[in-house]
Amino acid sequence: MTKKVLVIGGCGFIGSHIVDALLAAGVSVRVLDRRPETFREPLPEVEYNFGDFSDPFQLLEALESVDAVMHCASTTVPSTSNVDPVADITGNLISTVRLLKLLRQMNIKKLVYLSSGGTVYGVPQHNPVTEDHPQNPISSYGIVKSAIEKYIYMEEQLGDLSAVVLRASNPYGPRQGHTGIQGIIGTYLWKLARGENLEVWGDGTVVRDFIYVRDMADICVAALHSDQSGVFNAGAGEGNSVNDIVQAVRAATGKDFQPSYRNARSYDVPRIVLDIERAKAAFGWAPRVSLQDGVSESWKWVQSQARAQG
Amino acid sequence: MTKKVLVIGGCGFIGSHIVDALLAAGVSVRVLDRRPETFREPLPEVEYNFGDFSDPFQLLEALESVDAVMHCASTTVPSTSNVDPVADITGNLISTVRLLKLLRQMNIKKLVYLSSGGTVYGVPQHNPVTEDHPQNPISSYGIVKSAIEKYIYMEEQLGDLSAVVLRASNPYGPRQGHTGIQGIIGTYLWKLARGENLEVWGDGTVVRDFIYVRDMADICVAALHSDQSGVFNAGAGEGNSVNDIVQAVRAATGKDFQPSYRNARSYDVPRIVLDIERAKAAFGWAPRVSLQDGVSESWKWVQSQARAQG
Repeated sequence: MTKKVLVIGGCGFIGSHIVDALLAAGVSVRVLDRRPETFREPLPEVEYNFGDFSDPFQLLEALESVDAVMHCASTTVPSTSNVDPVADITGNLISTVRLLKLLRQMNIKKLVYLSSGGTVYGVPQHNPVTEDHPQNPISSYGIVKSAIEKYIYMEEQLGDLSAVVLRASNPYGPRQGHTGIQGIIGTYLWKLARGENLEVWGDGTVVRDFIYVRDMADICVAALHSDQSGVFNAGAGEGNSVNDIVQAVRAATGKDFQPSYRNARSYDVPRIVLDIERAKAAFGWAPRVSLQDGVSESWKWVQSQARAQG
Repeated sequence: MTKKVLVIGGCGFIGSHIVDALLAAGVSVRVLDRRPETFREPLPEVEYNFGDFSDPFQLLEALESVDAVMHCASTTVPSTSNVDPVADITGNLISTVRLLKLLRQMNIKKLVYLSSGGTVYGVPQHNPVTEDHPQNPISSYGIVKSAIEKYIYMEEQLGDLSAVVLRASNPYGPRQGHTGIQGIIGTYLWKLARGENLEVWGDGTVVRDFIYVRDMADICVAALHSDQSGVFNAGAGEGNSVNDIVQAVRAATGKDFQPSYRNARSYDVPRIVLDIERAKAAFGWAPRVSLQDGVSESWKWVQSQARAQG
């Protein structure tokens, strides 16, 4: 049983919810991140190490006396990774390869890694996408995630590591900032709270798999406590179009806004939905929060933040 | 039609044969490599640039006024890449990503890349291995090759590049030095020429796909002149065991030696043979040299070298 976990990237949007879920499960938590959370004060139960996980010395210190590692840090996002792939490779791939070497040296045998179901497959040949779908990413972000998965697999084959790779879809929920297409729900709600106009690229038929961030945190904790290893899609398992999101946002906010429709962007995959049967069977987990409930919860949180900011 | 080609790694074992085949096809050749060929004087028809392809300035200079690039350089070999994966990523992956950026900037639209059919697939789930076989490498070498393939694919999707990726099996032939398991034929012949004993790891039933290096060079030239793009296995398409090699070497050399059998090595994949139907159909190419003929040619060359060295 895991007693103490290092969460790399634990002050980020998803990481902060993983920390909450670990604490709720009675696990001691240390966080390694570059800066404190944006929307909360530091939690008294958590041991924070502020530093860069690509710095081997800070990583070594952060790994001291932990039983397991939850790695959900990324120095890049999908939409910008192609601008500087070398920085993507250096900041994420090389840093994670160094992490794997340290885990072996320090005899830490459990790792959960947050990969990306939205980018490692590229343009889906079929939907929903299963884990054995070919990997033809069209972003450096996806290529690097795919390469990291392979180094993890190799370490499992050649060493004693037991790892779970979770290919996340698009998480949304409280503490999500303005993060472009991947975080369209957060972006829409923040814009509405500020009285700004919403934009839709294309005709709104682009479909994504949106997962409420607490469901995402739950699968991370389940993976950490499981003796299963391998690669698992982690999404809602259902697709929603941008137009569906607009409808859910209207219902949650009570605002009858009209978005502005812009030209479609050539790099948006038209439709991707993850098949999550493997994760359900392995972890006894399932997403519990509907899109409408999740958007409503997110709206409550955005309103509270908007009020606090005056 | 290609008029001038830059061969990156053109002084290596495989590269030197690609240069020969390009010259025979009437193509102008520039070579970028770190040092001259080991076994030959520089060729008067070839323009040599000596330098490191991971140096962007030397690469820029080498790319000036060429129509196409044949990239067959590697700073690592499969058996040692796991010792320092970070050096593997830096020397090969990052350098090749920089190459792709330069190709785009300099409007060079044709690339042939030598990948590795022996490592990108990992332990085969079936034989012969087709190009759509899952990729689960167990060496950094294979992971880096796989990631390079993905960056090439992405560049084709997002830019104007037309690329052929050739997943080579185990080339052998004249100018092969002592290169361990991947180069077992060269190693055996050199040892025999020096009167040394041959070693077999395990019982000699390990099977590989050995391709005569001139057949390998021919497919590279065919790929360069083709308007096809994509990923292609490049091997003999048939398997030979280490015991088969021992037999062919006995027949070629007329020496009735007995190898020493050592313990099997845990990291040797038991059997891998490439399916080469896709390359045959796309390029009108086929391997022409049988294992026995190739080993005999290689032995003649080793003998000539051994005599020259006195």
